[in-house]
Amino acid sequence: MSDDGDVTAQLNARGDVAVVVPAAGAGVRLGPGAPKALRLLDGEPLLVHAIRRTAAAPSVRMIVVAAPPAEVDAVHALLAPVAPVTVVAGGAERQDSVSAALAVVPDDIGIVLVHDAARCLAPAELFERVAATVRDGADAVIPSLPVIDTIKEVAADGTVLGTVDRSVLRAVQTPQGFRAAVLRAAHAAAADLHTDDAGAVEKLGRPVVCVTGSDFALKITRPIDLALATHLLSLES
Amino acid sequence: MSDDGDVTAQLNARGDVAVVVPAAGAGVRLGPGAPKALRLLDGEPLLVHAIRRTAAAPSVRMIVVAAPPAEVDAVHALLAPVAPVTVVAGGAERQDSVSAALAVVPDDIGIVLVHDAARCLAPAELFERVAATVRDGADAVIPSLPVIDTIKEVAADGTVLGTVDRSVLRAVQTPQGFRAAVLRAAHAAAADLHTDDAGAVEKLGRPVVCVTGSDFALKITRPIDLALATHLLSLES
Repeated sequence: MSDDGDVTAQLNARGDVAVVVPAAGAGVRLGPGAPKALRLLDGEPLLVHAIRRTAAAPSVRMIVVAAPPAEVDAVHALLAPVAPVTVVAGGAERQDSVSAALAVVPDDIGIVLVHDAARCLAPAELFERVAATVRDGADAVIPSLPVIDTIKEVAADGTVLGTVDRSVLRAVQTPQGFRAAVLRAAHAAAADLHTDDAGAVEKLGRPVVCVTGSDFALKITRPIDLALATHLLSLES
Repeated sequence: MSDDGDVTAQLNARGDVAVVVPAAGAGVRLGPGAPKALRLLDGEPLLVHAIRRTAAAPSVRMIVVAAPPAEVDAVHALLAPVAPVTVVAGGAERQDSVSAALAVVPDDIGIVLVHDAARCLAPAELFERVAATVRDGADAVIPSLPVIDTIKEVAADGTVLGTVDRSVLRAVQTPQGFRAAVLRAAHAAAADLHTDDAGAVEKLGRPVVCVTGSDFALKITRPIDLALATHLLSLES
């Protein structure tokens, strides 16, 4: 694929980073009304926005997208004009998709970032910041921001149980970065992974560290997020 | 003030709700560069936007703004064309400002809402929803939304201590609503109140309940919030 002259971005053949994008969830399908990764922002699917910015990160050698098995060819056709991307068949659970994508990442790539296509405006600098912290020795790195709102813990009936000390809380974004061997071990050890990838590393007892996230890395899930993302697009330099 | 013919909104003389807006923080001053409550949104201070929507809530009989002592007249002049507002001199701490405002709320007003001018697009419907829940018997009511991002607890050095179960967390907004007597008791009991007003009620051991918040009640603190708020303004019906 790397000799495709029509591809907008080329990846760095000397890069030490693979980026994995699980996008095989039930919400992912092509065509009108498609939610999540293929929802349109400024006329393009979120996944296209995400891959464009991923490919702009100088350390990235490889991008692997896990698509619904029936959509592998279609997702490849969608992304091929944007950047050289390997598309694999994902699984029923997000964890399965990450594992399927990890399986095609060569052993000589030492750093793996896991990204959420719904955070499609995460800038190339954020990928570099996360990767650099792994390169400097961290096992697992997550971009995060302080929590601005007061946070309460509530019971099932909506009664407040207490006020949480938000100064010790961070809202986590993606891309999350890992030493490749640590992420592989975390996924191998996690039977039922109902958490983010960093959570799987936490369960291994390995340290996870935070770096400063980005306002641009917001998760686009609600209509109000799409409106904000449209505004952020206009701010990008 | 209620006979001022130029005032845009009149309040409901039969309403059972007083709304208190503490806006006496060091960040509040008139003129260019003013942060927080007097920051401009679409050419008007956040406080003006907030009071306009507060006054549009049919249950509101009284609005009390606590301003910096040197700015009481100026803040009154700013708000008088918007709605009939009582402006009192606030204190050094937010808690002092709420107490000063509470002191001028007559005893026959049974429900007090405390609002943050930085959440200036909180709609009149949200004031009504909170007030109605107090009217139905709750001591304290807070509008809140689910937490969307994964939340981690971190140590001072940025190392992750663990993943928080966000399903039991709510991001809290304002206006927060109270039976007037409960809020007065909570403020009387709280020597150093480093929490929101609902937190003071929690410390009394009284129940606090959540109602559904509003995307429009976001707290406007960062430039990105101001951009989103500008967009939200265009969506208001």
